Amino acid sequence: MSLFSFELDPDLAADPVFELHRHGKMAISSTVPLANRGDLSLAYTPGVARVCEAIARDPALAAHYTWTGNTVAVVTDGSAVLGLGNIGPSAAMPVMEGKAVLFKQFGGVDAVPVCLDTQDVDEIVATVTALAPSFGGINLEDISAPRCFEIERRLDAALGIPVFHDDQHGTAVVVLAALRNAVALLGRRFADLRVVISGAGAAGVAVTRMLVAGGVDGANVIVCDSQGILHTDRPGLTPTKAELAATTNVSGRAGGVREALIGADVLIGVSGGTIGEDALAGMAPGGIIFALANPTPEVLPEVAHRYAAIVATGRSDFPNQINNVLAFPGIFRGALDSRATTITQGMKVAAAEAIADVVLDDLRPDSIVPSALDPRVAPAVASAVAAAAERDGVGRVPETAPHSPAVAGL
Amino acid sequence: MSLFSFELDPDLAADPVFELHRHGKMAISSTVPLANRGDLSLAYTPGVARVCEAIARDPALAAHYTWTGNTVAVVTDGSAVLGLGNIGPSAAMPVMEGKAVLFKQFGGVDAVPVCLDTQDVDEIVATVTALAPSFGGINLEDISAPRCFEIERRLDAALGIPVFHDDQHGTAVVVLAALRNAVALLGRRFADLRVVISGAGAAGVAVTRMLVAGGVDGANVIVCDSQGILHTDRPGLTPTKAELAATTNVSGRAGGVREALIGADVLIGVSGGTIGEDALAGMAPGGIIFALANPTPEVLPEVAHRYAAIVATGRSDFPNQINNVLAFPGIFRGALDSRATTITQGMKVAAAEAIADVVLDDLRPDSIVPSALDPRVAPAVASAVAAAAERDGVGRVPETAPHSPAVAGL
Repeated sequence: MSLFSFELDPDLAADPVFELHRHGKMAISSTVPLANRGDLSLAYTPGVARVCEAIARDPALAAHYTWTGNTVAVVTDGSAVLGLGNIGPSAAMPVMEGKAVLFKQFGGVDAVPVCLDTQDVDEIVATVTALAPSFGGINLEDISAPRCFEIERRLDAALGIPVFHDDQHGTAVVVLAALRNAVALLGRRFADLRVVISGAGAAGVAVTRMLVAGGVDGANVIVCDSQGILHTDRPGLTPTKAELAATTNVSGRAGGVREALIGADVLIGVSGGTIGEDALAGMAPGGIIFALANPTPEVLPEVAHRYAAIVATGRSDFPNQINNVLAFPGIFRGALDSRATTITQGMKVAAAEAIADVVLDDLRPDSIVPSALDPRVAPAVASAVAAAAERDGVGRVPETAPHSPAVAGL
Repeated sequence: MSLFSFELDPDLAADPVFELHRHGKMAISSTVPLANRGDLSLAYTPGVARVCEAIARDPALAAHYTWTGNTVAVVTDGSAVLGLGNIGPSAAMPVMEGKAVLFKQFGGVDAVPVCLDTQDVDEIVATVTALAPSFGGINLEDISAPRCFEIERRLDAALGIPVFHDDQHGTAVVVLAALRNAVALLGRRFADLRVVISGAGAAGVAVTRMLVAGGVDGANVIVCDSQGILHTDRPGLTPTKAELAATTNVSGRAGGVREALIGADVLIGVSGGTIGEDALAGMAPGGIIFALANPTPEVLPEVAHRYAAIVATGRSDFPNQINNVLAFPGIFRGALDSRATTITQGMKVAAAEAIADVVLDDLRPDSIVPSALDPRVAPAVASAVAAAAERDGVGRVPETAPHSPAVAGL
């Protein structure tokens, strides 16, 4: 297709997905009238100068008198997009737009996709730091491990606004919510669970940390990557994996996922690989399998149910979908409402509890998390997150929430 | 005001400008349905992956299947905001939001304010370069001279999308439009005009270049800065001013604005200073004065009319308002519609002619440019700019414009 071609491939034009995506999925709108000179003199010169001067005197006013108090940048470098891999910033845009419209739909958050033409850690940190005055929060998205860990850590340290890598923490929050309800159904206790996490990328690392923050004993956790079990004697571990090895698997078990699963109560797959029945057969009976790889789970629910009492996947066509959309809109809604300066582990745990609580009155093995479209979730998460921000001293619960999620009609 | 305070200063809250600015002036909206699982599976996973894959194969598809084909980043470093000066990125945001909503209202362009926390030229260039895949064009705004010249030049060279510093070229385009109509009314010829430009910042430099591109003889132009007339013997000129000195003022006149104005037909003030009657008295009779400083023109219209037949200012409460909003929405609309890779001098001249033509049938000394709210302007400018892009080989006129300006009701 030439640079200036306007004719679309007829095959694409006939595909309903492409038809839906023509001109993209989002737009800017004005929230103020611009119909006459009087309107312009308030929204633009000369009136606007008074607002600028007030913010110059007191920068905290920007959150009240600009849209930044309600905005989040959805930042990617296109290096780990869905299951597609490193497809670059332009090809990542449809996913970022999708994320942005979900932010608005469920959280009432104005999210702006920012696809970066660099995959250099220093350049990404410098770019997002330079952009920060334009936004009330930074949602990192689809950035590959291990760069994602350093980028998030450095940005969180540098900026006074929340920074949140959704592939890590969004997934981890919903996993914690689902596990809490699964464990309640089974009458088990977090502290006793023997947990195997298959996958040590962005999601695997964050899930491990979140489960420990939520009450799982790290000593009873075993993390596997594509080379097998993480343990302290394994050579060549990245700093992140070395830290995981040091805080999990105290018995020093070695081997592959089959060895890891012997006697395990919980398997959480965030790897993208497959796990065979021979390995699953080693699990303790009556346990839990979350096979979250998309679009192909590590083990299909039909098979998983032979070895576990409760099964979840990442797919919408099976019960118990572990979907990040349950977390990120409400988490940022709560963080923005409370003017949180960061997102603490306590805020994430609070979000997980709020998600879990939504289905508490109707807990069933095939309904351990709410539907991704459940309009009760984001407001409950937002409220819990804002309260946790205040508890943790990084924000304050507002008397009235300044923005309401646009969930009406769902 | 403390970081987490939600109580607003009652004095501010009572001011209608602040009331209008609560929560800012703009919002994101979804343009696709998100009401059920089927909607989500098209707009987000799994359907979105097909669009990502297609763009990864052919990046030109991004302009069709993402919102980038209709977006412009309004980028500032807050160094030269309105007449307020260097107030920084947060305090600049209300102006950038105002610009963004004007882009939408008059050009149907989705504009995103980007306020940068750096005033370093290299960092600004690196940041905007990294952002470029997220947008279809870059509107630079309120960046101080001389840094604005280098930033624009380097970004235009680096990026395959239009880069346009509105304080330079938006002003220059509308000045050229107004001057063309003023000259027509007076029965004069561009080539004969003796022109004085008072001010050698962003606007002064661009106005000078644009008038020469439009037919004024550079030999007959004299540019003044705060130190007086630019001429080749003056020491200590910046590279930009040295270039202006070399291409204007062939007679080598020296002195101040009073000396510059002796025998001048046209005075264009873009300085922010004031020009006394003693200096104006030296102008040739029956000429033209554009006193564009805001909010206080270099000379008030009442006084200017004693020395010139046609007078314009930057203010909406006097006739002949030279307002950039006549230019930038249509220029970017035309550049985006034609997928222009840059904005050429020919596109700017075409924009000026289109603006001028709108009032050609009813040309009067107090109506040499259209009203800032005239809904005919942006579509006419867009069409002329797209045609010029094709003539200049940097774009192509589409058979049907993909987006329409949202000017209905104005």
